[in-house]
Amino acid sequence: MFTLKEFEEVRAGLRDRVRITPLLSSDSLSAQTGHRVYLKAESFQLTHSFKIRAAYGGLLPRLAEARRRGVVTGSSGNFAQGIAYAGRELGVAVTVVMLERSAPYKVEAARCLGAEIVFCPNEFSERVAMVERIHREQGKLIVHSFDDEGTICGNGTLGFELVEQLPEVEVVLVPTSGGGLLAGVAAVVKQLRPQVAVYGVQPENMRSMKVSLEKGAPTYAPTKPSVADGLVAACPGQLTFPLVRQYVEDVLLVSEEEIVRAVAHLLEPEKLVIEPSGAVGVAALLRHLRGKQPPRTIAVVLTGGNVEPGRLMDLVRSASPLR
Amino acid sequence: MFTLKEFEEVRAGLRDRVRITPLLSSDSLSAQTGHRVYLKAESFQLTHSFKIRAAYGGLLPRLAEARRRGVVTGSSGNFAQGIAYAGRELGVAVTVVMLERSAPYKVEAARCLGAEIVFCPNEFSERVAMVERIHREQGKLIVHSFDDEGTICGNGTLGFELVEQLPEVEVVLVPTSGGGLLAGVAAVVKQLRPQVAVYGVQPENMRSMKVSLEKGAPTYAPTKPSVADGLVAACPGQLTFPLVRQYVEDVLLVSEEEIVRAVAHLLEPEKLVIEPSGAVGVAALLRHLRGKQPPRTIAVVLTGGNVEPGRLMDLVRSASPLR
Repeated sequence: MFTLKEFEEVRAGLRDRVRITPLLSSDSLSAQTGHRVYLKAESFQLTHSFKIRAAYGGLLPRLAEARRRGVVTGSSGNFAQGIAYAGRELGVAVTVVMLERSAPYKVEAARCLGAEIVFCPNEFSERVAMVERIHREQGKLIVHSFDDEGTICGNGTLGFELVEQLPEVEVVLVPTSGGGLLAGVAAVVKQLRPQVAVYGVQPENMRSMKVSLEKGAPTYAPTKPSVADGLVAACPGQLTFPLVRQYVEDVLLVSEEEIVRAVAHLLEPEKLVIEPSGAVGVAALLRHLRGKQPPRTIAVVLTGGNVEPGRLMDLVRSASPLR
Repeated sequence: MFTLKEFEEVRAGLRDRVRITPLLSSDSLSAQTGHRVYLKAESFQLTHSFKIRAAYGGLLPRLAEARRRGVVTGSSGNFAQGIAYAGRELGVAVTVVMLERSAPYKVEAARCLGAEIVFCPNEFSERVAMVERIHREQGKLIVHSFDDEGTICGNGTLGFELVEQLPEVEVVLVPTSGGGLLAGVAAVVKQLRPQVAVYGVQPENMRSMKVSLEKGAPTYAPTKPSVADGLVAACPGQLTFPLVRQYVEDVLLVSEEEIVRAVAHLLEPEKLVIEPSGAVGVAALLRHLRGKQPPRTIAVVLTGGNVEPGRLMDLVRSASPLR
């Protein structure tokens, strides 16, 4: 499982379905950190986040059954849009369980793409329970947003792109929640280029992967609300964790203030609309890697751009300048 | 002059100095217009606008003399940044004459890159006069921001990229002021692909190229202030006009409200920070080409992203929704 061959097969299925997103070199971050910094802008992906990769990866291997039964999943927002979009393209009925506090902007986007939205109380465990109940009572197939072989392999497509767009890459920073993107990217990048260092990044307020790596097993970690509203998983997956342990250097933590500052920096001067969850890699770059010797070629994955413009402006206005 | 061979030579000189910017496909604009719409995002160019292409194109052919004498130019902002950047890289002292009403954001950016800024009254003719005076009194070499063989050829690099990134392109929309970018792009695209239709786009308030095409000669046209503060040329160039007449289909006009709406649309849902002058192509697409049969493959050039975030938000808030 999770061999390069398997990742390549999934990638072949996703070709022409998802976009190859631009990798943008950043003069400003390079100058500030002393490294050669590149930004992988999944804000220009279909549905404006990487999750469409996971969605196709999760649906395509079980397409006949998914069409027959419909699918149910839990999502803080971007996977909801991704699977709604992929479901619409593939003719699969999609139900998404979302936390009540989910950004209305993301709820509406998924609804517009044809998904049925069901709300649950604001606890990660409640979301899991609600998905299980719909599966039991309505017979819908569960597609897990991160802990699923197909979604992990779908995420791996981003790893191939990184290595092809930046063959000299030495360090990769990946926003992390349940570990689906981190596992997929790390497994592909490390199998292609064992010498590259892949790091996950989590908010200090939602550090389940960091805690789990320290404990050596998937561990529930208490979470506090974070501006990074897409990184809510309170526990890594059973599939993602072993991959992360095998292939990932470490998980870097960032503060709320650092995340907001990264969002502001990405808007100006980078000219990118990136949501807080998508910006944590830049926050980690500035906090943990700035000025470190020797200079490295670093790719920072910006996972998505789904933030409402008014909220973006509030964030930018509240940001203290980059130090 | 302006043969494909000449454009190719200039391009060779600019390789590794300017970026190949991403061409992004737009689902939303494609759905709204019935065409296949692609956005050429020069906001991700060095200095965040296409003008760095013009700047290198203008400096490289006369580098020895430029280094000895220094250069002077007039600019509403983006060429100022471009030539300041290129001058810094090439070791050329740069003086820029700017209108007093120029966006402080653009003035500061050019100054930070090492240019000397001289202000003149808010008239295009005053700017021309001041550049001439500095040339006469200080011996500095004039590099015209648009009406110069080198800058036009530098702009042509964008035409090559468009055809290579989108070989099936049928229509190209180019923001237009003095016609430097329009001339360069049209001359390259039409010599490579005679069947492509290239259009310039101007604000209704600054329509000098449109008027000149109607009169058959470069003609001063009275201007009114426009939110598109980079498109201030009140008269096309002596070099740009014949190229535009030869290679360009027509100039499309857009209103102030349409420009603001285009800026808002580019921010959300496209996730792009584009200044008003850079967004006029999208305004023209929506006003002039929407629903036209048959469906075409259209590339819209977004010339730059140099707009201060606070101003961007004011614009977006003031925009009426896309109709």
